[in-house]
Amino acid sequence: MRSVVIVGHGPAGISAAIYLKRSNIDVLVIGKDLGALSGYHDLIENYYGLSEPVSGETLIKNGIKQAIDMGIELLFDDVIALMEIDGGFRIKTKTTFYEAKTVLLATGKVRTGLNITGFAKYRGKGISMCATCDGYFYRNKRVGIVGSGHYMMHELEYLNRISEEVIVFTNGKPLTVEVHQQVIEEPLVAFLGEQKLTHVQTAVKNYPLDGVFLAIGAPSSLEFASQLGVIVDKGSVVVDQNYQTNVSGLFAAGDIIGGKLQISKAVFDGMNVADSIVSYLKSNN
Amino acid sequence: MRSVVIVGHGPAGISAAIYLKRSNIDVLVIGKDLGALSGYHDLIENYYGLSEPVSGETLIKNGIKQAIDMGIELLFDDVIALMEIDGGFRIKTKTTFYEAKTVLLATGKVRTGLNITGFAKYRGKGISMCATCDGYFYRNKRVGIVGSGHYMMHELEYLNRISEEVIVFTNGKPLTVEVHQQVIEEPLVAFLGEQKLTHVQTAVKNYPLDGVFLAIGAPSSLEFASQLGVIVDKGSVVVDQNYQTNVSGLFAAGDIIGGKLQISKAVFDGMNVADSIVSYLKSNN
Repeated sequence: MRSVVIVGHGPAGISAAIYLKRSNIDVLVIGKDLGALSGYHDLIENYYGLSEPVSGETLIKNGIKQAIDMGIELLFDDVIALMEIDGGFRIKTKTTFYEAKTVLLATGKVRTGLNITGFAKYRGKGISMCATCDGYFYRNKRVGIVGSGHYMMHELEYLNRISEEVIVFTNGKPLTVEVHQQVIEEPLVAFLGEQKLTHVQTAVKNYPLDGVFLAIGAPSSLEFASQLGVIVDKGSVVVDQNYQTNVSGLFAAGDIIGGKLQISKAVFDGMNVADSIVSYLKSNN
Repeated sequence: MRSVVIVGHGPAGISAAIYLKRSNIDVLVIGKDLGALSGYHDLIENYYGLSEPVSGETLIKNGIKQAIDMGIELLFDDVIALMEIDGGFRIKTKTTFYEAKTVLLATGKVRTGLNITGFAKYRGKGISMCATCDGYFYRNKRVGIVGSGHYMMHELEYLNRISEEVIVFTNGKPLTVEVHQQVIEEPLVAFLGEQKLTHVQTAVKNYPLDGVFLAIGAPSSLEFASQLGVIVDKGSVVVDQNYQTNVSGLFAAGDIIGGKLQISKAVFDGMNVADSIVSYLKSNN
């Protein structure tokens, strides 16, 4: 079993990895494909030490290079699920899984929503971001899941256990995994209902549904946190002064824990959480 | 009167300046000559975002370039004294002075000591780092001052008021200012005494003295802090949660306030103290 798996290769994750490596702790960083960064073109001016402003994409890539040059193990994959096992955690990716005594959530705070009529209105009223958290409330009801890849398939497995009637909506995206349910590929147009969601409308027709679960792309730290029953307050993972969540051995740092959404703060978090993880590993050896 | 003068152009000072500038606050950064950095050759590996490890000297220079490129006013000079005036502070440098509503001390924690026999033993027992703090205890006694430049001259002016018998020891350095006291240029060899300092020994002879004040090079933040009666605990300037010292309008950040002596932490401090200074300026307008 590894000592630490860090989910996220941004400022908090890499900063933590650097400090852990220098403490002689074996650490694996799992981050998404770098292609996911292609939108970060804005120049960063307010992070100390850059002789020229760089784009977010360049900064992330520089950080990754820095980690690799230090001999830190880095993997580009989507983490799609996280579960507690005896003495630690199992981290499931698209292609394989890892086990570690501690996990650091540092994927940032971007949470995949949908810019579709009715999404904000029915979120929490029929629309859920976490099948393993909220699925139980929809047992034996008609549910849909929005997504097209491995994360969707992982969430779908859970939904299949609670309902026999699950429809997959790819929202215009090509399905990249194999499923046995009804698949609707046309784009979503609106979420409809009264007090609660009653229908999902696509470009073609209306589907009567009691609940819809989002599982687009790869899950954010908030979604992992939800899977494990981590306490979340106002959209931030709650951590103690050691950056540990209410789940022993599960740490979080960076934007995901709230505070200033600044690189300086994420990097500072990374430095501090590394120390906390070192202490945790020592006292739980 | 300016809004902010930052003393120190390292990670904390420049990070604060960047955030202040982006808040549209006029800010002047005063740092020492870059030549003073020539010893910082160790490579920095543990600061996030550097695609190649750089020396401390390069990082400081990159930070300075970053500030200048953003239009931040930067001055290379030695700050030799700091005093409270109506509505703010006067910051005296070797060549001129500035006035500002707030001052941020961010000069780091290097404190000039002397690697001379007896220094550690008699520090606080006849050897003082601050004439304006401790000079009064030596009124009308035989005192010496160690130093050769503007800071020494500034401290000497104070000592002249409390004692008629002050000897200047340049400790082998050429005197770069004009003084009217006895000047001893030979290197110091030892501090001698019993319970307290009684003599200063040079390569040539012994000088009977009751007290010796160090004023070598330019003063550190701790020495400025002492001049203003700032509370210092275990070698660190004490600040509140807003990075403000017990002197209203006087802030401190970086190594000088203790905690982890890491660039990440200094940069984080700089970001935070900038917000505090903005709030202070608003509420004291």
